[in-house]
Amino acid sequence: MAERTVYLLQYGLGKVGRALVGLVLAHGQRLDIRYVALADSSGLVWAPEGLSDEALRGLLAAKERGEGLARQPLGRDYGQVSSIHEAAELKGPAVLIDCTASTQMTLLWIEGRRRGIHVVLANKLPLVGSLADYQALTGPAAGALRYEVTVGAGLPVIRTLEGMLATGDEIHAIEGCFSGTLGYLFSRMEEGLTFSAAVREAWQRGYTEPDPREDLSGADVARKALILARRMGCKLELTQVAVEPLFPAEMADLSLEEFMDSIAELDEVYRKRLAEAQAEGRTLRYVAQASDTDCRVGLVTVARQGRFGSLHGPENIVVFHTARYDETPLTIAGPGAGPEVTAAGVLGDILSIVRKG
Amino acid sequence: MAERTVYLLQYGLGKVGRALVGLVLAHGQRLDIRYVALADSSGLVWAPEGLSDEALRGLLAAKERGEGLARQPLGRDYGQVSSIHEAAELKGPAVLIDCTASTQMTLLWIEGRRRGIHVVLANKLPLVGSLADYQALTGPAAGALRYEVTVGAGLPVIRTLEGMLATGDEIHAIEGCFSGTLGYLFSRMEEGLTFSAAVREAWQRGYTEPDPREDLSGADVARKALILARRMGCKLELTQVAVEPLFPAEMADLSLEEFMDSIAELDEVYRKRLAEAQAEGRTLRYVAQASDTDCRVGLVTVARQGRFGSLHGPENIVVFHTARYDETPLTIAGPGAGPEVTAAGVLGDILSIVRKG
Repeated sequence: MAERTVYLLQYGLGKVGRALVGLVLAHGQRLDIRYVALADSSGLVWAPEGLSDEALRGLLAAKERGEGLARQPLGRDYGQVSSIHEAAELKGPAVLIDCTASTQMTLLWIEGRRRGIHVVLANKLPLVGSLADYQALTGPAAGALRYEVTVGAGLPVIRTLEGMLATGDEIHAIEGCFSGTLGYLFSRMEEGLTFSAAVREAWQRGYTEPDPREDLSGADVARKALILARRMGCKLELTQVAVEPLFPAEMADLSLEEFMDSIAELDEVYRKRLAEAQAEGRTLRYVAQASDTDCRVGLVTVARQGRFGSLHGPENIVVFHTARYDETPLTIAGPGAGPEVTAAGVLGDILSIVRKG
Repeated sequence: MAERTVYLLQYGLGKVGRALVGLVLAHGQRLDIRYVALADSSGLVWAPEGLSDEALRGLLAAKERGEGLARQPLGRDYGQVSSIHEAAELKGPAVLIDCTASTQMTLLWIEGRRRGIHVVLANKLPLVGSLADYQALTGPAAGALRYEVTVGAGLPVIRTLEGMLATGDEIHAIEGCFSGTLGYLFSRMEEGLTFSAAVREAWQRGYTEPDPREDLSGADVARKALILARRMGCKLELTQVAVEPLFPAEMADLSLEEFMDSIAELDEVYRKRLAEAQAEGRTLRYVAQASDTDCRVGLVTVARQGRFGSLHGPENIVVFHTARYDETPLTIAGPGAGPEVTAAGVLGDILSIVRKG
């Protein structure tokens, strides 16, 4: 089937953004995909004819050296080019890609979609702002919107949900374990480690954010749960999601060093909760629950041999309970993070918009 | 986003075919989908302006009464109308849907795709004919081809595989349990039933085909495995798939009654195999394995607490081992049969072809 060249404008060159550039370098020619813009916080590189492979490799190398894109060949400040205006003039479908961790570009995505440019988000933040912003971003528009990798990375979570909704299924609830880090933690505690030892180990191995409280707060899981709930029609704000953090509020103000020094104070609480669960053949998992009216994340006791209890370490899982998948739910499991699977999911989103056949 | 009316031409009105008509009756208006043809072995009903809801309900009722479509209002013999020719003249995308269990229409699907008509198969048989026929059916053409429900019914198996291939992942192997009936059987044997008692129970409850040897032969699992393997590039014919049937060849010629009377002869074989597996903390599952060079189905011992061993009764599972999903595979599980989830999967295929945005 004849396809036209697809033009990419990518914002953000962190791990996922760099992996995506690598993937396009490897497969872009076969897929007839071409970068016309790469952007970071300093500015953007703009090449309406498409950046050559050599140019892309040079830009990746510059980022590895810590240099901003504005200073590279073809680099500009944000004031010097209206990427949306020019992208709308390209002779093929254009896709804006958000690999940032910022909300500053949300208006750009809205304006892009209005002008028929497609938008693919690897960034959760634009989807968990105010409900009004969410509706402005996700409402009907000339350009498509995809955000598969915001929940479960490359796992086919959003497209499965979209398919159920499009074909008229009634979603009762979606439940899941969406934090590989917290999954790892509770797997290690099952193996006998204390809470603090498990946190310290995950932190030292680089499985947590630099400040492990970012994982332990449950905030990232709450964002994923809200993305699912909102897609089902739930009208909640992020602040209304019920979140159980894994440390008390007074530890939020400590320095990282103080926090790591005092975390052993929590060992007894979690030892007891795990022991109580295990006494009933159960165990602990950090679970997200989303429906069209409710959204909550926290530590729950689950059957040891069940879908959640039998998860391996950092593996993620998502379980769809629907009118059609009633007696036996539909379950998807696998790694829910990682630059490579995430970048592949973004590329899958791009292809799902621009290809047929 | 503006969409054009989608025109459906459906062949086959068995359980899945009737469920699909029901689904279009419920949601077709919202989706702007309209039947222009319904066909069974007697002939077809043809209405280029679209069949009204009333007409569709009348045709479903006629089928329930056991009447052929050729005798209904607007009914014709196959000689009287060239549906492909006329479908190509419609003012919007047309989709041929195969809900039959026949291979007689395969040339129609090939010709349809050549003329820009899309094809959605719920029928496995056109995909497991000779390799030459497979290549003619699945090769590049103006019309799209989808066949999600041929493996795992509504579970997103084929689209997940397609996404991996499109984004350049390397599939090492796909493994799975694709027979709800055989899953049920071995779950019941774990609960203490003999092989023959489990078969008889499944048969009496209508979980098996009318002749349970159709399930026990492994042939249907082999077809699903071959569909996956061929999509990965495997050049095997169906006769080259290694299949372990669950009864000896000499029992294939017995009458159904004789077979059901003599099946207890097999109890000791399977009791012993299960006991040997259980002595090692393992159990038995009927597993399909597919790669780009190999395709085999049969009874294997699996870890009791593993992905396959912990399956519940008729639940299906598919596990993707790939370069990206290496350490932890991507797993999809849920019911792999049933008219409702299958029909929803067919509708999902239709929408995936004709919709964007």
